[in-house]
Amino acid sequence: MKIAVIGTGMVGRVLAARLSGLGHEVVIGTRDVEATMVRADTDALGTPPYAQWQAEHPEVGLRTFAAAGAFAELVLNASNGANSLRALEQVGADNLTGKVLVDVALPLDLSQGMPPTLTVANTDSLGEQIQRAFPAARVVKTLNTVFCEVMVDPARVPGEHTVFVAGDDADAKNTARELLSAFGWPERRVIDLGDITGARGSEMYMRLYFQLAGLLNTFELNIEVHRSQTASR
Amino acid sequence: MKIAVIGTGMVGRVLAARLSGLGHEVVIGTRDVEATMVRADTDALGTPPYAQWQAEHPEVGLRTFAAAGAFAELVLNASNGANSLRALEQVGADNLTGKVLVDVALPLDLSQGMPPTLTVANTDSLGEQIQRAFPAARVVKTLNTVFCEVMVDPARVPGEHTVFVAGDDADAKNTARELLSAFGWPERRVIDLGDITGARGSEMYMRLYFQLAGLLNTFELNIEVHRSQTASR
Repeated sequence: MKIAVIGTGMVGRVLAARLSGLGHEVVIGTRDVEATMVRADTDALGTPPYAQWQAEHPEVGLRTFAAAGAFAELVLNASNGANSLRALEQVGADNLTGKVLVDVALPLDLSQGMPPTLTVANTDSLGEQIQRAFPAARVVKTLNTVFCEVMVDPARVPGEHTVFVAGDDADAKNTARELLSAFGWPERRVIDLGDITGARGSEMYMRLYFQLAGLLNTFELNIEVHRSQTASR
Repeated sequence: MKIAVIGTGMVGRVLAARLSGLGHEVVIGTRDVEATMVRADTDALGTPPYAQWQAEHPEVGLRTFAAAGAFAELVLNASNGANSLRALEQVGADNLTGKVLVDVALPLDLSQGMPPTLTVANTDSLGEQIQRAFPAARVVKTLNTVFCEVMVDPARVPGEHTVFVAGDDADAKNTARELLSAFGWPERRVIDLGDITGARGSEMYMRLYFQLAGLLNTFELNIEVHRSQTASR
């Protein structure tokens, strides 16, 4: 499949490399190709310059947001959640029409340090905002509850831990589940939270996730859901 | 220990009965004792009238908020989270001074149905609001991530699932942990989220919890935290 990954950061790179390794044709979308390639600084999270990663991954193309969107059959939003709506506007509503838009982004406000607060929460979510802004896209919120290395290789964390999907379009969710399966997520560990408002639960969980990451000194963590065998109510 | 449980609903009753069964002297606090005893209706959640429960639990006293607070060495807030600050005001700041205040309440807004939104989230939490309103109380947020029957009997849900504590006072957290241990929570399954701002994570998780409760058709569920054995960052 032709896949555009939106976002040149750590999450976008890890997803792009993994999808390419699975045999997909993958491009990464960015605002300004030249500016991305000449940037020489390591970012606040310690992510090395993009050009260095690009040299190690010649199989992944780098395009403008719009060119990446035009190329893609499926678009994967791995941009900084605080900027996702602007980035997807540049991808272009026409380039998103009818396509599956897998949204893994987090609406984080890191201005007060860690753990972050969210830029949207409680009565709305980033997943819902994206679906409203691009009503002809078929948005699926997923993978946002785990670190990028765990997204593409869940066996890095032991146990029967869970990944969530939420979205209005059942076929789009099936497509997303196929990607999850290819990444290594067994079907039994995928929980469907229903329509795109389900994104609220998985996004709001991120506060607890970042608190746990600080306490356990790793981002490589996840939760397993246990339930009573004799449901009383 | 002399314990006042604030709140006559299902959560307060389950906690009061369990604490009494463990040998504590327990009273339940209410706004108006007579009104609570004469109420004959079953509430929206199907909870039977208080007087019926009271007749089955003569070992638990019913007092006004203030009298319950004056009686108690430890206060447990099991009131409706949307009303907790008002209820605790009636308990009285003086009656809370220096005491451990275990807060299990959820700031739920159920006006739009299930799953609920929160009355406070993201940049604040009910636990923090209570600690700010009663600075001389030693607030510990805990047990708010599980259904009341699971609070007092975690074995109802299989697996190595987790309970969280958060609070500014280390001794108060130790007292809360002793209660958790008596309820059946092994020490290894108690995660300390740090100071009272940790309540934000456990309260915001409630959105996901209620979504899962709807999907799994039970409130008797909980999460287990798994982490990588080789923490990379």
